[in-house]
Amino acid sequence: MGQGVHVTELPGVGTRYDVDLADDENRVSVVVRPGGTRYLYVFATRSAEPTAVLELTDEQARKLAAVLSATFYEG
Amino acid sequence: MGQGVHVTELPGVGTRYDVDLADDENRVSVVVRPGGTRYLYVFATRSAEPTAVLELTDEQARKLAAVLSATFYEG
Repeated sequence: MGQGVHVTELPGVGTRYDVDLADDENRVSVVVRPGGTRYLYVFATRSAEPTAVLELTDEQARKLAAVLSATFYEG
Repeated sequence: MGQGVHVTELPGVGTRYDVDLADDENRVSVVVRPGGTRYLYVFATRSAEPTAVLELTDEQARKLAAVLSATFYEG
């Protein structure tokens, strides 16, 4: 699982995870704050500035994770 | 788990999942194609046009999901 994810500790901020994508153009990073809040950064260009930033609560992040991992079922 | 996620079948395309966020400004949607490819749409404005779109393979989507759900550990 470690392969394809780069982890960077950001002292005082949290932990940053960079997920490798197939191409150079797109990148996605998640910053997990000690309290559980996640920041999702999407880079859809080569720019250092993210194309979009989303702040997610723990619950929202878990829902998005369930959908992404295809473990989401209506119930 | 069903709460907070809206599911829409898109015939011939796949299944679309809209994850409720706290505010009206931001939205995130995932379209899962029959073959497993996911499209992540991030709406960081009220516009109908997504701010960013990412195409993720099954493996990439699972890695991002693991990071988001905080089940990712280096190993």
